[in-house]
Amino acid sequence: MSTYQRSIDIQTRGRGSIEITTQVGDLVRTSGIVTGVAHVFVQHTSCSLMITENADPSVRRDLETLAQRWAPDGDQAYQHDNEGDDDMAAHARSVLTGNSVSVPVGAGELLFGKWQGIYLWEHRTSPHGRTVVVTVVGE
Amino acid sequence: MSTYQRSIDIQTRGRGSIEITTQVGDLVRTSGIVTGVAHVFVQHTSCSLMITENADPSVRRDLETLAQRWAPDGDQAYQHDNEGDDDMAAHARSVLTGNSVSVPVGAGELLFGKWQGIYLWEHRTSPHGRTVVVTVVGE
Amino acid sequence: MSTYQRSIDIQTRGRGSIEITTQVGDLVRTSGIVTGVAHVFVQHTSCSLMITENADPSVRRDLETLAQRWAPDGDQAYQHDNEGDDDMAAHARSVLTGNSVSVPVGAGELLFGKWQGIYLWEHRTSPHGRTVVVTVVGE
Repeated sequence: MSTYQRSIDIQTRGRGSIEITTQVGDLVRTSGIVTGVAHVFVQHTSCSLMITENADPSVRRDLETLAQRWAPDGDQAYQHDNEGDDDMAAHARSVLTGNSVSVPVGAGELLFGKWQGIYLWEHRTSPHGRTVVVTVVGE
Repeated sequence: MSTYQRSIDIQTRGRGSIEITTQVGDLVRTSGIVTGVAHVFVQHTSCSLMITENADPSVRRDLETLAQRWAPDGDQAYQHDNEGDDDMAAHARSVLTGNSVSVPVGAGELLFGKWQGIYLWEHRTSPHGRTVVVTVVGE
Repeated sequence: MSTYQRSIDIQTRGRGSIEITTQVGDLVRTSGIVTGVAHVFVQHTSCSLMITENADPSVRRDLETLAQRWAPDGDQAYQHDNEGDDDMAAHARSVLTGNSVSVPVGAGELLFGKWQGIYLWEHRTSPHGRTVVVTVVGE
């Protein structure tokens, strides 16, 4: 049994999702762990990590449309708006969609289905530097 | 420390949730792992896994009612509708409710509260074959 | 490699969120595990665990406002209302926001970003006793 841990730094361009499947898969391969779980965690509360379809980008555009309903920018009910209209909306989107994903590792690879990818979902409208911590546990 | 990993194939009958607690618990027992974490992952982006009340089935009927509001079928705003009215709705429900659950293992069993069960939640309206990967890590 | 597991009992005062970051961090330190993952799980289906901003309490007040829209108390569409108007709403909030969180452990500490905290989010309106199981896996 062993544990492998590395961080990935990602520069976002504002709201939208960025695929990080390749970076995470590379770390799994480097870890030398054959069977186990890869845990991916974002050290922020205004972006999130998700696994979704990696074929048609319109899926992620539609997710933006829905997220705007789930947690509208600049809602009059918000008390927390220090950093602008997207501030509280970003925290709520993060809580709804989660700040970690974990993926089984088998034969030394991410055990993904055909259409699955890992995305960092930036919820702030302006560009941000984000840190993702990848921990692989297994043997 | 050791790691144990197996897949479960599940045939769904279209939209709705199917309890898989027994299958996961059996794999935990077979693993021989006494203390650790059981990670359960679905290799698809249009169904999800959830832990919810296993006593009154009306809970899961009401969850369907709410999910229809969170991500309505056939919404005019969707760009992604190649596979029909439930296509984008299914991806959105999957992102909202998650494609993995993880449960502590203690004394060789899932450490569930009295009313907790694991469900595969099919979001497509037609029947699908689904693969769930269970990984148990611990000692 | 080793595994460490302990339970935390928490008495809630009804709906609202309670920070448990310190208790979880203390268990990580006690575990002696230097690198790995801390898995935190709540053994109930009407409360949840979340990671969100720990600086301005208005974030968590606004989350209550939004959760009331995501799963309204006493909605006429609910079939499951045995325990009152907040019964089904609590189950739905739990499914949406999740019954576990997991955090990387590095240098023997939770690898949190500057503004992240772990919260037990009680969704029932009356006080409840809740049990949280913390499992640390790593080496």
